[in-house]
Amino acid sequence: MKQTYAPAILPVVAGYGSVAGPKEGKGRFAKYFDVIMSDDSVGQPSYEKAEGMLYLTAAQQALGRAGLTPEQLCCMAGGDLLNQIISSGYSAREMGAPFLGLYGACSTMAESLIAGTLLVGGGFTDNVLCVTSSHFSTAERQFRMPLEMGGQRPPTAQWTVTGSGATVLAKAGSGPHVTRFTIGRVVDYGVSDANNMGAAMAPAAADTLAAHFRESGVTPDYYDCIYTGDLGHLGLHLLRDILRADYGLDLGDQLHDCGDEIFLPEQDTHCGGSGCGCAAVTFNGYLLKRMKYGELRRILLVATGALMSTTSSQQGESIPGVAHAVAVEA
Amino acid sequence: MKQTYAPAILPVVAGYGSVAGPKEGKGRFAKYFDVIMSDDSVGQPSYEKAEGMLYLTAAQQALGRAGLTPEQLCCMAGGDLLNQIISSGYSAREMGAPFLGLYGACSTMAESLIAGTLLVGGGFTDNVLCVTSSHFSTAERQFRMPLEMGGQRPPTAQWTVTGSGATVLAKAGSGPHVTRFTIGRVVDYGVSDANNMGAAMAPAAADTLAAHFRESGVTPDYYDCIYTGDLGHLGLHLLRDILRADYGLDLGDQLHDCGDEIFLPEQDTHCGGSGCGCAAVTFNGYLLKRMKYGELRRILLVATGALMSTTSSQQGESIPGVAHAVAVEA
Repeated sequence: MKQTYAPAILPVVAGYGSVAGPKEGKGRFAKYFDVIMSDDSVGQPSYEKAEGMLYLTAAQQALGRAGLTPEQLCCMAGGDLLNQIISSGYSAREMGAPFLGLYGACSTMAESLIAGTLLVGGGFTDNVLCVTSSHFSTAERQFRMPLEMGGQRPPTAQWTVTGSGATVLAKAGSGPHVTRFTIGRVVDYGVSDANNMGAAMAPAAADTLAAHFRESGVTPDYYDCIYTGDLGHLGLHLLRDILRADYGLDLGDQLHDCGDEIFLPEQDTHCGGSGCGCAAVTFNGYLLKRMKYGELRRILLVATGALMSTTSSQQGESIPGVAHAVAVEA
Repeated sequence: MKQTYAPAILPVVAGYGSVAGPKEGKGRFAKYFDVIMSDDSVGQPSYEKAEGMLYLTAAQQALGRAGLTPEQLCCMAGGDLLNQIISSGYSAREMGAPFLGLYGACSTMAESLIAGTLLVGGGFTDNVLCVTSSHFSTAERQFRMPLEMGGQRPPTAQWTVTGSGATVLAKAGSGPHVTRFTIGRVVDYGVSDANNMGAAMAPAAADTLAAHFRESGVTPDYYDCIYTGDLGHLGLHLLRDILRADYGLDLGDQLHDCGDEIFLPEQDTHCGGSGCGCAAVTFNGYLLKRMKYGELRRILLVATGALMSTTSSQQGESIPGVAHAVAVEA
């Protein structure tokens, strides 16, 4: 089985945009975000509509940097955490572009970059908008408890990032390139605690990282840094253990995690950040801007997702994980 | 804006499988289905797990016809109607193949064939499993009312098909080919009645059909038949009206709809069938088998989806539609 591919045409990262909520705007990557919302309702009558606004704002930032009007956009490939990915569907209605809806839970930023690479790198479209979002208040009430309940969060919990990130991949233009990607398998070590997503997703991240290095011919030190999606503090720790014990891999200081780093310790998020927006704003804010400044030349994004629902949890199912990897090089 | 593409490598439809529930197994396409389940719980403790069994069974049928073991499968591209596409996620865990999760509501069969065509036709993978499912009892209780309530269904309602369809697209092998596809835009005419999905989706089907004929250079009579996804009786009627009034197109006897035809009038489904499984079993059962028998040589599938959730409906949003088109030719 092969999971890693290099496109014949290397798509250019022609544009990118990142929009973050107020809490994220006080976190470690604050200065790298294009827009920080002062209010997480973004002036909308519901948190779901607020998430849609984040989504459209990130898309506009990315299109603007790429010098594209919505009419010039060939395709939009995106998804989000909400049931029936409504943030994406309603945003696609506003954008008017051909739309491919994706669901990869919190791995969606990487999945959308893969879909974009298939479209541009396979010689189909001239450009693609890859986009995803999450919102603390829409995710909490959908997946966990009503916000008004004020439930106690266990120490393994992560904080869903309010934010959206968007990337324009294009056939031509200036910017770094997507050079290869690895499509993840669904891996399940039997974790069933919906408040311990890092543990549920770490095995999938390990599986995808191992496949990437086994198949691509590059060694981990080829990349300036490797960022997994949203494993958080505990998940990152477990990933290091699994990589060492099961695959004989030690990624050392090169291995980072978006969820582990996005919030500062004093922000009291317990195990860090999560949600589609976590990898999306880290990639489209922090990582791509550091590439622009010349501080990074080769990065690997490995966004991770937990493929469960409230129904599957209630029916006693464990939480399978998936992780997709995308390499971007200047 | 361009929406229609022809792959450089034309993917072969190397395998296909269709699994239907008991009601569908008494409908118009019954003799074309590979497997008809005598019990819609399929021996499982929940309807969600039953839907997963349909999914895996259809996948096995398609892999079997293509002569592939699960280990030889390069990628699985699929989605379904359930929150967080759990039928797909848990099936992907069982299959073990690299997995791209999709969400296109009831357009997912066509969307998965497009994803498969990007992967195989773009020169990435040797094969892809394109698959989707729906189940009356999982969809009704998620989207509408508890089954136990026995609510009255209005005349515009459609009956969610219990079934799953799967297609293997491959770089080599014998069978018909995917020759072109059209990625749909999200179109919203303001319909907000969740019991009138045909009306909500008909404008998207018209938009995609018009784009397909405008861009592909083929005329409607090029195809032996054109099957929209699951508009049902009323939606098909509205589609004919919209095509005539807004686009000057009359597709006459060539235009059919999976939802309009899958059930017999005496089965009391009101406006016909719906759900991801509707287009999936019609395409992988009825249409591909008629191609195999030489009764059809060129077909166009235009699966349609309604991109709403219970949350968006409760918040007063209208129901946007999307439709993707895939041409298959012997």
